[in-house]
Amino acid sequence: MQWAVLLAGGSGTRFWPLSSPRRPKQLLPLAGSRSPIEEAIDRLAGFIPAERILIVTGEQLSGPLRERVDLPAGNFLVEPRAAGTGPALVWATLEAARRDPDAAIISMHADWSVRDATAFVATAATALEVADRHHRLVTVGIVPSRPDTGFGYIVPGGRLDTASCAVERFVEKPDAARALDLMAEGALWNSGLFAWRANDLRREIAAHTPEIAPYLSRLDGGDVQGFFHDVRAVSIDVGLFERSAAVAVVAGDFSWDDIGTWEALARVRSRDRRGNVVHGPVTLVDCSDCIVWNDGPPMVLSGVRDLVVVHANQRTLVLDRARAPDLKATLDALPAEVRELD
Amino acid sequence: MQWAVLLAGGSGTRFWPLSSPRRPKQLLPLAGSRSPIEEAIDRLAGFIPAERILIVTGEQLSGPLRERVDLPAGNFLVEPRAAGTGPALVWATLEAARRDPDAAIISMHADWSVRDATAFVATAATALEVADRHHRLVTVGIVPSRPDTGFGYIVPGGRLDTASCAVERFVEKPDAARALDLMAEGALWNSGLFAWRANDLRREIAAHTPEIAPYLSRLDGGDVQGFFHDVRAVSIDVGLFERSAAVAVVAGDFSWDDIGTWEALARVRSRDRRGNVVHGPVTLVDCSDCIVWNDGPPMVLSGVRDLVVVHANQRTLVLDRARAPDLKATLDALPAEVRELD
Repeated sequence: MQWAVLLAGGSGTRFWPLSSPRRPKQLLPLAGSRSPIEEAIDRLAGFIPAERILIVTGEQLSGPLRERVDLPAGNFLVEPRAAGTGPALVWATLEAARRDPDAAIISMHADWSVRDATAFVATAATALEVADRHHRLVTVGIVPSRPDTGFGYIVPGGRLDTASCAVERFVEKPDAARALDLMAEGALWNSGLFAWRANDLRREIAAHTPEIAPYLSRLDGGDVQGFFHDVRAVSIDVGLFERSAAVAVVAGDFSWDDIGTWEALARVRSRDRRGNVVHGPVTLVDCSDCIVWNDGPPMVLSGVRDLVVVHANQRTLVLDRARAPDLKATLDALPAEVRELD
Repeated sequence: MQWAVLLAGGSGTRFWPLSSPRRPKQLLPLAGSRSPIEEAIDRLAGFIPAERILIVTGEQLSGPLRERVDLPAGNFLVEPRAAGTGPALVWATLEAARRDPDAAIISMHADWSVRDATAFVATAATALEVADRHHRLVTVGIVPSRPDTGFGYIVPGGRLDTASCAVERFVEKPDAARALDLMAEGALWNSGLFAWRANDLRREIAAHTPEIAPYLSRLDGGDVQGFFHDVRAVSIDVGLFERSAAVAVVAGDFSWDDIGTWEALARVRSRDRRGNVVHGPVTLVDCSDCIVWNDGPPMVLSGVRDLVVVHANQRTLVLDRARAPDLKATLDALPAEVRELD
C-alpha cells in the first residue's frame, strides 16, 4: 500500500523571531491561513489516509506537532538525534514496511507551499507508479519558474517511459548564470519529493550507503536509539541518489515553493503594487519590496525598500532583504539571550 | 531684574512615536540622562533663580511639565491657544514686567542641547547687557559648525560695540549651497535665544506688529483669554525682528543644537565607530549610520544603513533617515488610530 512520510525537522531559525522551538515554521501560517504541515496533510486527502501518514520530527518539535496535527499517536516518529534526511527516511520507510511489507513511500518536507493539490497528487501518484514499475528510487523534479540559486537541480537523462527519465546528474545550488544555463538545458529543481518501494530503498542503501547500511539490522530489531546512535549523518541526496544508478526522475509541473526563508514570503503571499508583502498591523508610506510581519502593536515603515521587518515573540528584526537567505549568519552574531526565544 | 522665559510648546510629533502629548520631547532624555527642560533650568542655575523663570506652554503639556519641573505654580504660563512665538513672548514679557517693572528678559526654547553651560550663561549675560545698553532687541547668533539647512541664518551688519552688531538681514532656511555661502560670509544660526528689556519689546511691538499691538491693552487689563482670542498668530522673527531697526546680534560660540528631529540624535549622543546611535536593547550586525531608540524588547538590525528605527509607546517606526526632518509628512499619511498615542 501507499504511505506518505513527512519530514518536519529543522532548528526553527529560518523565520526567526517568528519561528521558535515551541512554534516551528511547519506550524506557522506563513503562506495563508493554514500552517504548512496542515496543508501538507490536507493535500494528501483522498490519496493517502491519515493512518498511513508518518511524520518524522525531533524531540523539541514533536509536542507542538502532536497538538496541532490529527494523526494516530504512533505515526509521529521522533528522532533521537538529527542525522540528516538519509537516516530519517530509512527509518520511516522501514517502519512503514514493518507495518505493511509491501509499502511504497512518497516522501516530502512539511514546509512546502503547493498551490494546486490535484496536480501535486497526480504527480505523486505517477512517481509511485514509476517506482513500482522500474524498481527505482524516484525523485520529482519541479519545472523551474525562475533561475533560483537556492535549490539544487536535476539534469534528466535517457527516457525510461512516457512519464520518467533516468538521471544524468544532480547539480548543487548553482550561481545565477549557471542557473540560467540549467533552465535552458531542461534541468529541474530537486524538490525533495521522492517515491520508492520499501524493499528497493533497502537494497540500494545496502549497496551504496556505508553511513547507514551496517546499522539497518538495528532497525530490524526495533532498536531505533541504537540506529541513530551509530549512523553517520548524511542526506538522502548525497548518501544515495547521487550514488545509485537505480534512480529516475519524474517532472512535476505545479507551483511549488519550500518557503525556506523570509524572502520566500514574497513568492507565496500576495504583494501590493509596489512589491510589498505585509502581515499584521502595518502602514507603509512610500515603501517598496519590503516583507513585513508584525504580531505586535502598529508598525510604520516610511521611505524604505528591500527590508525584512518582523516583530514577533518579543523581538524586532530589521534586516536587509538580501541577507534573508543567510539569516543564520545574523543569528550567530547575536548574544544567546537575544537569539533564544521563550 | 533679569528673567528667563522658556518656550515649551509644540505638538509633540517630531519624535513620534517616542514623544506624545503626555510626554513631549521637552521631557524626554534624548541627549542624556536629564530631559531638555530640566537641563535648561539647570543651565540657568546661579544666573537666574527659579522664581524668575517663566515657562510658556500649552494646555496639553502643562500637566506633565508641572509634574517634572520644580518652579512656582504661577510661573507656568498656559496659553489658551498656540499663536506662535510672537504672542507667547509678548505675554511672558508683560507678565514679568507686571511683577517687576524693570524686567529684562532672556528667552529660549526648552528643547535645546547645550554642552557648555558656562559659555551659554556668559553669552546670555552679554546679550542682556547689550539689550540694556542699546535699548535694542538682541538675538544671539550661534557660530555655525556645519552648513545646516535646517536653521535660519543672521547676517551681521555694522558693529555696535565689542560684543554686538546691528543685523544686516535675516535669511530663511537655505539650501545646501547657499548655507555654505552664508557660513563663508560669517552668517550665524538664528537660534531663538533673545534678550530685551520689557519696555523696549513693548515699544517695538507697538510700532511694528499689527498682529499683536492693538491687543496689548488686554494683557494690561489681565485679560489673557481675550489677548489670545484676538491676536493673529505670528513668530517673533517675522512679526518683529525682521521689521524693527532696533535689533542687535551677539555671537554665541558654544555647542548648541535644537534636537528638533531624530536626525539630531546623531549629533548629541555618542556614536559607535560605524556612525550608529543606539538607545535601549539593540544588537547591530553590520549596520552603519543608523539611529535606533528601543523602549521595548530586544531589537536586532542586520545589514542596514541610514535608518531611523524606533519602538516606543506601542508603536514601531522604520524610517529612511533622510526623511527624519520631514517626519510630519509621514505622520500625515497615517490613519489617526495609528498616529495617535495613548
